[in-house]
Amino acid sequence: MSERAVKAAVLVIGDEILSGRTQDVNVAQIARFLAPIGITLGEARVVSDDEGEIAGALNALRTRWDYVFTTGGIGPTHDDITADAVAAAFGVAIGIRADARAILEAQYAASGTELTPARLRMARIPEGASLIANPVTGAPGFQIGNVFVLAGVPKICRGMLEDIAHRLQGGAVTHAVAVRLENAREGDLAEALGKIAADHPDCSIGSYPWFEELPGGGLKRGVELVARGRDAAELETVRARLQSLQRAPTA
Amino acid sequence: MSERAVKAAVLVIGDEILSGRTQDVNVAQIARFLAPIGITLGEARVVSDDEGEIAGALNALRTRWDYVFTTGGIGPTHDDITADAVAAAFGVAIGIRADARAILEAQYAASGTELTPARLRMARIPEGASLIANPVTGAPGFQIGNVFVLAGVPKICRGMLEDIAHRLQGGAVTHAVAVRLENAREGDLAEALGKIAADHPDCSIGSYPWFEELPGGGLKRGVELVARGRDAAELETVRARLQSLQRAPTA
Repeated sequence: MSERAVKAAVLVIGDEILSGRTQDVNVAQIARFLAPIGITLGEARVVSDDEGEIAGALNALRTRWDYVFTTGGIGPTHDDITADAVAAAFGVAIGIRADARAILEAQYAASGTELTPARLRMARIPEGASLIANPVTGAPGFQIGNVFVLAGVPKICRGMLEDIAHRLQGGAVTHAVAVRLENAREGDLAEALGKIAADHPDCSIGSYPWFEELPGGGLKRGVELVARGRDAAELETVRARLQSLQRAPTA
Repeated sequence: MSERAVKAAVLVIGDEILSGRTQDVNVAQIARFLAPIGITLGEARVVSDDEGEIAGALNALRTRWDYVFTTGGIGPTHDDITADAVAAAFGVAIGIRADARAILEAQYAASGTELTPARLRMARIPEGASLIANPVTGAPGFQIGNVFVLAGVPKICRGMLEDIAHRLQGGAVTHAVAVRLENAREGDLAEALGKIAADHPDCSIGSYPWFEELPGGGLKRGVELVARGRDAAELETVRARLQSLQRAPTA
């Protein structure tokens, strides 16, 4: 474990996310998976099912961040073009690979399903990549360089992450503490909060207002304060100071 | 209404989205708001609460897409730096503006709340911007050039969109039809689906596998097919062809 900050990006591939029809949950899921390993997300992008868009974004991200995780577009249908786009981004060949084909053959034989030419597309792997196991439906993801190509279905994406953790070199783990203030307003807290943030430059402190509709029609409001940092003892000090803001009188 | 494709991007600003602690819903919300106006999302990005990150992403997006919508970072606390980052991206000055200040004064006077210096930060507007009304909490967003700066709290973000629609020049509306196939598998559909897609190059057809756990422990599976296009009659033809796949025998 180095003390260097290790940062990653997520590249979500899919027209259905951009149309608003499907709600992405993989960015948050991957972020929560990486945090205990000591890797934080520096950026996330969503692009359409277009080879040029995917390859362009991937090349921008993989040269900037330590790791990149892509989600989506690795199934058997015509709109699944991620593997080709990744090969194009890396400038390598792509074709059906024996080990990936063997996985699919075994999987479909076990379920008595025909390995159609369309399904065989899922064995197309860019040259130089290593496979990522898919414990849910078999069809593998793959890793090439610092890029991990995962499924878009959240459950499959989550399963694939299990085969990735041991390949990642994490940094110092960032801890988080949260304080939920009731009947508080950001404008009343801001000055004291700014002072706490200034006193602890190694911690990042975020302030998030929340609103809850009450059954009677009223509105309850408060502020969630979240501090992040690598020094657990310092974070505990910060947490106590943030908690003390609950007692500050509202103006 | 022009027939040109009008495309937009969303820039989500916030460490809490990147940490996985908060689930973004604004990308999908904005996409669904824009669709009937004839504007589709071409890209979305999430960046951290860092002025350089925000300004860099904003300049990349605003020069490439017709419109950009940012969400988050416009409150009164130290971590709300979006307005400054937008001013930096455009290379313009920023300061407290009289009309924005008047809105805040009226709002806080009505609720008997002190207009603290922290709250006054929400009246800091980049030079040349026009305000966007906030029907929920008063503090305005703003528009500068083709960039719309909105709140991150989903309910406030949604409220601000109502003050934006009339400022947007939409293109031809993209319609969507969806067909939900039960007990279907992508690998069995892929060939026929590819043919339909090839026959209708002006429609974009997406294929999305779904899985449902049954109460008895089993798994139900199927495929959701979504076609998009501008010609409603052609889309109806495509819908019928997609629906006919339900009856195709599984191999």
